[in-house]
Amino acid sequence: MPDICLLGTGGMLPLRDRFLTSLYYEHNGRAVLIDCGEGTQVAAAAHGVKLSRIECIFITHSHGDHIFGLPGLLSSISNTGRTEELRIFAPRSCIPVINALANITGGLPYPVSAQPLDEDRESDIPLTFIDPLLTVRTLPLSHRVPCLGYCIELRKKPVFEPERARELGVPVEYWKALHSGQSVTLPGGAVIAPGQVTGSQREPVKVVYTTDTLPLPEIAGFAENADLFICEGMYGLPEKKPSLDEKRHMLMQDACSLAHDAGAKRLWLTHFSPAEKEPEIYEKALKRIFPGVRISSDGERITL
Amino acid sequence: MPDICLLGTGGMLPLRDRFLTSLYYEHNGRAVLIDCGEGTQVAAAAHGVKLSRIECIFITHSHGDHIFGLPGLLSSISNTGRTEELRIFAPRSCIPVINALANITGGLPYPVSAQPLDEDRESDIPLTFIDPLLTVRTLPLSHRVPCLGYCIELRKKPVFEPERARELGVPVEYWKALHSGQSVTLPGGAVIAPGQVTGSQREPVKVVYTTDTLPLPEIAGFAENADLFICEGMYGLPEKKPSLDEKRHMLMQDACSLAHDAGAKRLWLTHFSPAEKEPEIYEKALKRIFPGVRISSDGERITL
Repeated sequence: MPDICLLGTGGMLPLRDRFLTSLYYEHNGRAVLIDCGEGTQVAAAAHGVKLSRIECIFITHSHGDHIFGLPGLLSSISNTGRTEELRIFAPRSCIPVINALANITGGLPYPVSAQPLDEDRESDIPLTFIDPLLTVRTLPLSHRVPCLGYCIELRKKPVFEPERARELGVPVEYWKALHSGQSVTLPGGAVIAPGQVTGSQREPVKVVYTTDTLPLPEIAGFAENADLFICEGMYGLPEKKPSLDEKRHMLMQDACSLAHDAGAKRLWLTHFSPAEKEPEIYEKALKRIFPGVRISSDGERITL
Repeated sequence: MPDICLLGTGGMLPLRDRFLTSLYYEHNGRAVLIDCGEGTQVAAAAHGVKLSRIECIFITHSHGDHIFGLPGLLSSISNTGRTEELRIFAPRSCIPVINALANITGGLPYPVSAQPLDEDRESDIPLTFIDPLLTVRTLPLSHRVPCLGYCIELRKKPVFEPERARELGVPVEYWKALHSGQSVTLPGGAVIAPGQVTGSQREPVKVVYTTDTLPLPEIAGFAENADLFICEGMYGLPEKKPSLDEKRHMLMQDACSLAHDAGAKRLWLTHFSPAEKEPEIYEKALKRIFPGVRISSDGERITL
């Protein structure tokens, strides 16, 4: 089951006690990072996250608070002995700046490949290089520059039912293949399909990450039934709405409404303005919109 | 008199409680920054340093722990309303990476000019755009890439002697020009030179910053009589010497010997290896080599 750590919860500027928003998602010892602002490597070290486990990085958009930590992080990953390719997925128009940030390191002992993502339509990126059951889906958001939301989905195998396998006379050595979704041919010639020995499909574990954006109604569909929905909440004061509309961000209240509409299991708010010194003061009122809301703090963790 | 703040004391990696080595030097409300590793803008904010006062930046060399904070710092300076040019001085071979780091910000509301410095000989850079009395001198160091040491010298005006001015019949309105070093012609035609109304020259205030380098003997000459000598001290254990020779760094003991040979007034050690968790344990022993040594910590300050 995935282990999730929100490395930072700040927007715009890194602060001494609040690093910039970045998500670490680990499954079976291999990890995905989303966003990498200045100081992300420090936050990773502070929260005991091993850089050697990062297999790929997703970038939401090209603003500095989401990318300026890349040169330092990539350099520090060099010290882990990595030689395999590291993929950085980002909206297509970000690719030149991603390449520039990687080149600034002056050469790494492993290849970095910047992989462009469509900015105007949803797409699926199967993370087969980590696990065949892991996929990232994208959603175009509405910010001042092209920006993507990400949904990390970990499919669960259906439950294997040994009684049914025994009834059908399937020897134990075929069980693993059947449970992985492959049909098998028994020595006597009978073909057994996976569905004959497994229970019904189970819901995938779904983690959704959307920042920085206007509160588009599509986000609720994207985050439908999410086990964990992580969303920006720049400010808690409704008076800030006009300035957020202009800068294409959202209020904490907007995020709570989206979580409610999505039927999400839990919502972590993040990407707080540096002017919001104590975002936790809004939590009680926000629970009236969406009871599963949490004002995150750096190092927030969960195993789903 | 200059106010000095060592924003960080770390080498190689920024840590949660130890930012990367960077020096802030302020004189009459205008400042020089030396080096800018990842997180320097956070350290500046933590120590109450105003980014709006930074008039120029000097970079010692192109390694990430001295430059990766530039995109974030330059972006944050945008928020101070700056429109005037900001100069970044660096060894000639660093200029492409400095320009790349500035370009990554995606455009700033003020011009940045990267100014190349000779890498193989000493040079003087008069900081007349800050104060005619302020000069930076360089010293080529010996690291794995071209690297420069810096000496910030603030000349002091000689003491003005009003009695002598009165004896010579110099009206008060000419005193300021004479004290600033200009000759004046009195209404009667007599020419008065500054030396006729001022006392002897005074020693400049001298701050020297050298990291990362082998302990070259030239450094002692460069730091001669320095009011403040700031020097790297990667490790305190003499067993580390062979590895430091290979990586072209120095021991804390080497820095103390240089400070002794220089006749410096005080030495601040910095650029500690992340492996040196408690560098202060060495201080007592180091004082036997140079009594004016101090194991710096982040935010170390002095007014000279």
